Amino acid sequence: MKVKVSTKETIIEAAISLFNIQGYDGTSIRDIAKKAKVNPANISYYFEGKQGLLEKCLVLFFEAYLTYLEEEVSLLAYERPDYCLKRAVYKILSFQSNNHLLSRLVWREVSLDSQIVREITSSYLMKERFLYKKLIEAAIQENTYSISDISFLIIQLKSLLTMPFLNGQYLREVWNIFPQDRYFVEKYYQHIDDWIDAGLLQKTKMVNIPI
Amino acid sequence: MKVKVSTKETIIEAAISLFNIQGYDGTSIRDIAKKAKVNPANISYYFEGKQGLLEKCLVLFFEAYLTYLEEEVSLLAYERPDYCLKRAVYKILSFQSNNHLLSRLVWREVSLDSQIVREITSSYLMKERFLYKKLIEAAIQENTYSISDISFLIIQLKSLLTMPFLNGQYLREVWNIFPQDRYFVEKYYQHIDDWIDAGLLQKTKMVNIPI
Repeated sequence: MKVKVSTKETIIEAAISLFNIQGYDGTSIRDIAKKAKVNPANISYYFEGKQGLLEKCLVLFFEAYLTYLEEEVSLLAYERPDYCLKRAVYKILSFQSNNHLLSRLVWREVSLDSQIVREITSSYLMKERFLYKKLIEAAIQENTYSISDISFLIIQLKSLLTMPFLNGQYLREVWNIFPQDRYFVEKYYQHIDDWIDAGLLQKTKMVNIPI
Repeated sequence: MKVKVSTKETIIEAAISLFNIQGYDGTSIRDIAKKAKVNPANISYYFEGKQGLLEKCLVLFFEAYLTYLEEEVSLLAYERPDYCLKRAVYKILSFQSNNHLLSRLVWREVSLDSQIVREITSSYLMKERFLYKKLIEAAIQENTYSISDISFLIIQLKSLLTMPFLNGQYLREVWNIFPQDRYFVEKYYQHIDDWIDAGLLQKTKMVNIPI
């Protein structure tokens, strides 16, 4: 059994790497099999072809990613909500950093207007929306934001969280910054933390200032 | 001549649309010709094939996009730098909103780790870096930021500017927000304006508060 799991993982890793370099449509089953050093028949057997392999990548990513959000939402009843939000941010950054190639693939695929991707991700992304809303609404307790403002705040937070991983190559080549480094997560987290404090929680904070 | 220009534009529009739906590798010259209602030979004649067409899209986008940044950098000597920065932000949002399909294509292609895209865009993205740095360094005159902080601020600003256009479908389907609407630009601009004031200029402002 151990060998089989390892073959599956090898295939997935080869696929992630090639999809990132050549694009999904530019990569054949044969390319993946060659890189993974397996027989092409294995890919059909384990994943029912190239689309199944892409689906597997998306599922792997979103199942883990949403777990971090769910964990923190479930802690809202017991802990300071701004801590829960920030811990979710930190966990998601770390997860993406540890899986930077998979993250890039997923965020790029999600930007494509294809029926397949839409079907696979719409459930995950609706769930993601629900969880972010829970966290942010709890964090800005004294709610001076409109519903439309909250949508925009979540969109902004999401863009801050995903962009470095979607554009890993840009960060490396233009800025000499490496999103897969532990150092990056620590440093970048501080900036999002500032954004949460200054941008998101500011209105609440201002209300709290003793006059 | 007019007819020729129009044919070129029709081909470009068909290509942008199909690249967004099927991906670059998933789209053939034949598909584009069919959608544009032209003879496939026209595409070879005008663009030297599919790659030439993609290059044309990237060049069209970046030439316009960088002009907005250049304009504001050249005004830095005459106007308040935070105004220049904010005007650049507004112009870039409007430009992307008016060309939302092209914007999505470009930002997605740039995220791909391909040699071709790397060569075409590295010059543009290095120039973009230079111009953003000029604008942001001028805006935060009383420079309490380190060089590494400025890199991160630019990366954050870029993610806020590009994400809604890269993920137009996500915004539509999950949030019922339409980045191609004028209303979106006005509303979203306010949020980035807040981010610039609270996150980016905050340190400077705090120094300016009369005690």
